[in-house]
Amino acid sequence: MPYFDAASAAPLHPVARQALLAALDEGWADPARLYREGRRARLLLDAAREAAAEAVGCRPDELVFTSSGTTAVHAGIAGALSGRRRVGRHLAHSAVEHSSVLHSAAAHEAAGGSCTEVPVDRFGAVDPAAYGAALRADTALACLQSANHEVGTEQPVAEVAALCAQAGVPLLVDAAQSLGWGPVPAGWSLLTASAHKWGGPAGVGLLAVRKGTRFSPQGPAGERESGRSPGFENLPAIVAAAASLRAVRGEAAAEAVRLRALVDRIRSVVAERVPDVEVVGDPVRRLPHLVTFSCLYVDGETLLHELDRREFSVSSGSSCTSSTLTPSHVLRAMGVLSEGNVRVSLPPGTAGADVDRFLEVLPGVVAEVRERFGAPVSASAPPSPAPAASLVVDALGRRCPIPVIELAKVIEEVAVGATVTVLADDEAARLDIPAWCEMRGQEYVGEEPADRGSAYVVRRLG
Amino acid sequence: MPYFDAASAAPLHPVARQALLAALDEGWADPARLYREGRRARLLLDAAREAAAEAVGCRPDELVFTSSGTTAVHAGIAGALSGRRRVGRHLAHSAVEHSSVLHSAAAHEAAGGSCTEVPVDRFGAVDPAAYGAALRADTALACLQSANHEVGTEQPVAEVAALCAQAGVPLLVDAAQSLGWGPVPAGWSLLTASAHKWGGPAGVGLLAVRKGTRFSPQGPAGERESGRSPGFENLPAIVAAAASLRAVRGEAAAEAVRLRALVDRIRSVVAERVPDVEVVGDPVRRLPHLVTFSCLYVDGETLLHELDRREFSVSSGSSCTSSTLTPSHVLRAMGVLSEGNVRVSLPPGTAGADVDRFLEVLPGVVAEVRERFGAPVSASAPPSPAPAASLVVDALGRRCPIPVIELAKVIEEVAVGATVTVLADDEAARLDIPAWCEMRGQEYVGEEPADRGSAYVVRRLG
Repeated sequence: MPYFDAASAAPLHPVARQALLAALDEGWADPARLYREGRRARLLLDAAREAAAEAVGCRPDELVFTSSGTTAVHAGIAGALSGRRRVGRHLAHSAVEHSSVLHSAAAHEAAGGSCTEVPVDRFGAVDPAAYGAALRADTALACLQSANHEVGTEQPVAEVAALCAQAGVPLLVDAAQSLGWGPVPAGWSLLTASAHKWGGPAGVGLLAVRKGTRFSPQGPAGERESGRSPGFENLPAIVAAAASLRAVRGEAAAEAVRLRALVDRIRSVVAERVPDVEVVGDPVRRLPHLVTFSCLYVDGETLLHELDRREFSVSSGSSCTSSTLTPSHVLRAMGVLSEGNVRVSLPPGTAGADVDRFLEVLPGVVAEVRERFGAPVSASAPPSPAPAASLVVDALGRRCPIPVIELAKVIEEVAVGATVTVLADDEAARLDIPAWCEMRGQEYVGEEPADRGSAYVVRRLG
Repeated sequence: MPYFDAASAAPLHPVARQALLAALDEGWADPARLYREGRRARLLLDAAREAAAEAVGCRPDELVFTSSGTTAVHAGIAGALSGRRRVGRHLAHSAVEHSSVLHSAAAHEAAGGSCTEVPVDRFGAVDPAAYGAALRADTALACLQSANHEVGTEQPVAEVAALCAQAGVPLLVDAAQSLGWGPVPAGWSLLTASAHKWGGPAGVGLLAVRKGTRFSPQGPAGERESGRSPGFENLPAIVAAAASLRAVRGEAAAEAVRLRALVDRIRSVVAERVPDVEVVGDPVRRLPHLVTFSCLYVDGETLLHELDRREFSVSSGSSCTSSTLTPSHVLRAMGVLSEGNVRVSLPPGTAGADVDRFLEVLPGVVAEVRERFGAPVSASAPPSPAPAASLVVDALGRRCPIPVIELAKVIEEVAVGATVTVLADDEAARLDIPAWCEMRGQEYVGEEPADRGSAYVVRRLG
């Protein structure tokens, strides 16, 4: 049963499992205690810290273990912002960071700080010059992920780090998606990661803070992990996390080549065999194992469900699969289609045959879902006999992908040069109607306020 | 090799180990995902929540899992204080709470809030009336542990809860030490606990918040655990924690009777066989498995080391075993001796024979350490031939237990009614010199400022 959602969580690596079992016996005691069980636990903790620090490329005393990647980010951002409070209260970050960064930024703004969100291009990457321009005299911290968790695009970390160094601003790199594949380019001041993304157990994140970086831990004081991560160390899991990081790094070079080729195959075959699809993210500067694409006229939740029925586990940034019914902020920031969105992230060891089977199954599943939604058949409608001047389509109360389907159905009923106005109150329409225009070569005129929802105006070009 | 420090961490319960192994295979995926691995994880998480809620005595939707008991306390206090910010910013707590509560209180004060520390009696218990008197119109939250982690004394939770209810103040009960033994008396509004204290794995705490309790989670927003605990759920560990809570509860009634008898035996034999010892904590209203005593003229670290050499693992609240070189705040609040302090906390299943062996070994070890420190032999010194009027002993720069030893050595050199003044700059002297007076029937006159450290004045009564 192929599991293609390694970017959410990877199954436990066999080495992690082994290390966890051993550490359950040897490492359950309090490493702060002086008796033999405590000393044994301390030895295990020290060894895990050394192994993790080596993989990260820092000194052991620069690295602490947290309870997750999210808490590492929260603690890292809060501590760095507070450590440089005298410099200012400005925080810079890209528009496509993980929610833990965005939520930290929102909390910072709510507490009176200010933030600049650096936009990304259509591939999801920041422009180093634009990032550099966001740095100000009062910038306390800059945040940039090593690679994006939804579309796999690598960020220009080395270039941004150089600009940060020039400006004297510490850079926090969220390396959650990439650390298993290799170290982060030099130049970071803080680094965060999450063990269950590299085949370690849940319950372990890591936060590295370079010596010399001003850092003032926030929240109630704590005695453990240099006061940077509260609570009793999750020791057996920490031991397993460090062991599996070392193990996946040993396999990373060869596995990256193999998965990169599989992802290239997915990228080209999906574009070829699925009509009206947008494969997103940078095709070259990207994580080896991750690819994302969006299918016009498709409901993401139904698509996931149908793939799950055929035993493929993938995730989606479509609005219908989110608890807030808004499309992924990453796809939104990139300005790409969000409906029918599928993220495929291959765990190490994925069989090529499973990818082949996925590629065989996918086109039929997409076609089936489209048919169920009454989607227009791609580029095959006969020209309308009597073109109308312009049209208004009422899609109020209808959820993604219906507003786009309704638009596609009527676009050829208006004359070239005339407009179709779609009334919609589904959040996804704001992203998907312009994306549809881009894909179908029509002109997106703009959005106008309406009594309910918004009016999206599209001009027929061809 | 007898491990007698269950109050720090208990070895993994066999049921927890089994559940953990099963959940590593079935519960590694993201429970928020829609595919089969995610649904399986969700089922495990829901079942664990139900089991834990049943043991706690609350509804499943009132309970979230955190990454430790400490983070549960931090999140619980911060959320409750913020939820009632309009009422006021006053926090009440006992003087003997766990450091996670005291650190939260300190953070609250640093942020402009106010706190009242309710004192305890010589057994370590709060007086309900005194606790009630600490509640004010602007009290946002009251905190009280179910039982003390260092001396085992149970707090009058039901009585304090009734007074809190009367005053309309929510009560947070830190049940870290007692939850494995049974539910907390009714009346709490928030409850926290820690799995590795009941034989679950590290990395799991729990926070229950009764419906109707105003609660506003602090820190960056989160999507998981009702927004009350950030980061990816530590699912296999959560499953193991819930399973072991159920298992230890099943064994608790019988095991409590057995361990209570063993602890009674320790309490009486230690008092009988070890001269100049103070067995502290309530002898009756206490945890079944925990006892603490302090030995005059003994260095705690040396004592622990010698016991460890004889394969007994115990902990200590002596200043010399703490990183800050201050005695345990619990012993300080109780006003009892801190030097030569030993906490014995028996894990379930402790063999009576191991306890017997401990009781055989202990008196010799204490005598040996005392001899090494040149401690006076108890109550056997011949009356001094020529009593001096009064004496000053300079113990500056000397660490616990030396100042008390020096005092004991000279007390019979002064006349009855005359004083000995001990100059000392070790923090422990402030607690241990009055405690020594209490134990030896001498009068503690008081502490006076000195050029360095303090001058502790003692009057010889007999």
